[in-house]
Amino acid sequence: MDMFTVMKREAVSELLGHEFKNVKLEEECIDIENALGRILAEDIIARENIPDFVRSTVDGYAVKSQNTVGANQALPAFLNLVGEVKMGEETDLCLGEHETAYVPTGGMLPKGADSMVMIEYTDVFGDEIAINKPAANLENVIGVGDDVARGWCALNKGLQIKTQHIGALAALGYSKVKVRRRPRITILSTGDELVAVDQKPAVGQIRDVNTYSLQAMVTAIGCQVVGIKRLKDDFEHLKDALKTAQENSDVVFLSGGSSVGNHDMTSEVINAVGTPGVLVHGIAIKPGKPTIAARIDKTAIFGLPGHPASCVIAFKAVVEPFIQEVLLGAEIKTQRIEAVSGFQMHVSSGRDVFFMVTLDNRNDQITAQPVKGKSGMVSMFSSADGYIEIPMEKEGLEIGEKITVTLFR
Amino acid sequence: MDMFTVMKREAVSELLGHEFKNVKLEEECIDIENALGRILAEDIIARENIPDFVRSTVDGYAVKSQNTVGANQALPAFLNLVGEVKMGEETDLCLGEHETAYVPTGGMLPKGADSMVMIEYTDVFGDEIAINKPAANLENVIGVGDDVARGWCALNKGLQIKTQHIGALAALGYSKVKVRRRPRITILSTGDELVAVDQKPAVGQIRDVNTYSLQAMVTAIGCQVVGIKRLKDDFEHLKDALKTAQENSDVVFLSGGSSVGNHDMTSEVINAVGTPGVLVHGIAIKPGKPTIAARIDKTAIFGLPGHPASCVIAFKAVVEPFIQEVLLGAEIKTQRIEAVSGFQMHVSSGRDVFFMVTLDNRNDQITAQPVKGKSGMVSMFSSADGYIEIPMEKEGLEIGEKITVTLFR
Repeated sequence: MDMFTVMKREAVSELLGHEFKNVKLEEECIDIENALGRILAEDIIARENIPDFVRSTVDGYAVKSQNTVGANQALPAFLNLVGEVKMGEETDLCLGEHETAYVPTGGMLPKGADSMVMIEYTDVFGDEIAINKPAANLENVIGVGDDVARGWCALNKGLQIKTQHIGALAALGYSKVKVRRRPRITILSTGDELVAVDQKPAVGQIRDVNTYSLQAMVTAIGCQVVGIKRLKDDFEHLKDALKTAQENSDVVFLSGGSSVGNHDMTSEVINAVGTPGVLVHGIAIKPGKPTIAARIDKTAIFGLPGHPASCVIAFKAVVEPFIQEVLLGAEIKTQRIEAVSGFQMHVSSGRDVFFMVTLDNRNDQITAQPVKGKSGMVSMFSSADGYIEIPMEKEGLEIGEKITVTLFR
Repeated sequence: MDMFTVMKREAVSELLGHEFKNVKLEEECIDIENALGRILAEDIIARENIPDFVRSTVDGYAVKSQNTVGANQALPAFLNLVGEVKMGEETDLCLGEHETAYVPTGGMLPKGADSMVMIEYTDVFGDEIAINKPAANLENVIGVGDDVARGWCALNKGLQIKTQHIGALAALGYSKVKVRRRPRITILSTGDELVAVDQKPAVGQIRDVNTYSLQAMVTAIGCQVVGIKRLKDDFEHLKDALKTAQENSDVVFLSGGSSVGNHDMTSEVINAVGTPGVLVHGIAIKPGKPTIAARIDKTAIFGLPGHPASCVIAFKAVVEPFIQEVLLGAEIKTQRIEAVSGFQMHVSSGRDVFFMVTLDNRNDQITAQPVKGKSGMVSMFSSADGYIEIPMEKEGLEIGEKITVTLFR
């Protein structure tokens, strides 16, 4: 393996941001019922006031509040009943001085009225209504635009659309919405030692776990897998496969086996297919150091480590933020929770260190424990709820220390 | 509206559990690449040891540890080099007393060897290797089954499959997996006052927000929407639509408008279609009280309140747990986070009270604020990150109090 300069993660992220600054994915207009998880490509502006008429929040009488000043049980204000508003109907009524009308909850206030008196504070004397309590201006009503004022930006461009936002879009009258198109992904797994999942690996062989992990992780963030190929370590085959993948995809993964020499070849193949080629060869993260990042034309290419846990961490630490922030222009509230470390650990690797953890919710306290297992590959995957990160400046972790856990999806 | 007995949420959940105890959804066998988010219908048992041979974790020399006792720089143990193991190859070598063989990282240990000495602690003298440090039994090796022992239950039935579990399944050699089939959902929205989302509502009309909210929420938990219909408040139309929906669905939603009388009709229509019919009419939650729960044959039918925020809360508090726990037999780690209340509130409604909140992450502290807005429908949906729950026994919430927020998906 040739020597390469290991870059800090922040520098990699900055470099990728710069290289792909003109490569934001196109917008497409889709029905809101298909928009779950997608990234908004427009600000959602309220096009109307909600409600667009003054509405009562109680059953009672609509009044001009100035006609009720000083009213009380002993000395009520007497108002003339001039009508009744029906629920769900537009009213033509217009209150003059000392006039009132009955309005049910949700009903529209007549013109001239500015507040509602609850029926409990009134007495009926034929066509005269005794008001036993003064009403303040706008009391017991929802004003025009109280929920949403026309022109208000309800949802921001870059938002990832969740269930509650679909409700907001519907209420605002948006049946369609502009989102970024799904990133197209190709996964090329390379290595003579890889066997299909349903085969039993012989000595020196391993199952092709990474193809499945990567497929699941990109699917979970809304990407579309357009191609999957398992390839032998042959330069020409790899080159042809990468060329085709690069032409059809926004992101291509070259997921290496663990064999020595694999990484050299990955980087040579990338540079043989196009320019500018390899940008980063080695990132200061642990695990995941031998990660490659490259660009060919508008396509991002990532060479990921062969060890399944390293592959997952490299993806989460470097690739996922790139796809979400750079390609999709998304502002993601990542799934992070506060927990307390249930273990002690000393690290001093000069790299950002990632640990998969399992969460334990006892005594009203979420505690993170490292996932067990010596080599820890499968056991890691089956019991991990997420991972924690120890930045390179930090020397370790104490028991009881407050930590942030990023949850797997 | 006829009077009905309001039931506590726990009692509703118990009653539904009992009514549907024989209605668990069937299993189906699917490829693991399509299994994200699905519910495991089988325990995943390791069918082999991983690794299934003893493997070195270092570059160095395989030894019988008892041949290295007391070895040091001054007085090394000298062993005869009898061979070299190649990476990824099965070896026939068998070490006798005082014999050694070179083994690279990841390579298979020869028979007779029980540990590895790192190359740094050795010197080569032709066919003799000087071992400068004693090796402990099993030092620098991964034993058979160290990651996974045959027979170990890696993933439990009822688990919701996440990205990391796909990796575990692949590593364990499962290319297919048994999951519960997706619940089939029909959404019937009823109410003369409902208009389509792309229409501007007149006074007394509202947009059909709930159909979209419900569709998004059921999709987010892995259900399949098989039918959507918007119906006028006509008994016979409703009855026909419900009958068809009931025959084709596991769960049917009757999402009412806000008009008076709607709930009466919903419950009459349900009882007219089949038995046992309405089980619950009124749940002690706020909002969401007028929720109806019913069973006709194997189908669950829920009559949900018309107000969009109430509809969401009734779904999250009652329907989602029912679908996940009863129909799918799932053990869900819900998306809950710890936060601190940024507001004070007094409640004493005799119901479990739900509040949508927005989260604010400042000063290393996640603070929950109630979503603003007087009627709060759209503004609620656009700014809510999740909701909190105040059980009926509790009288309120203080500023700074520790609370649990359930995140929207």
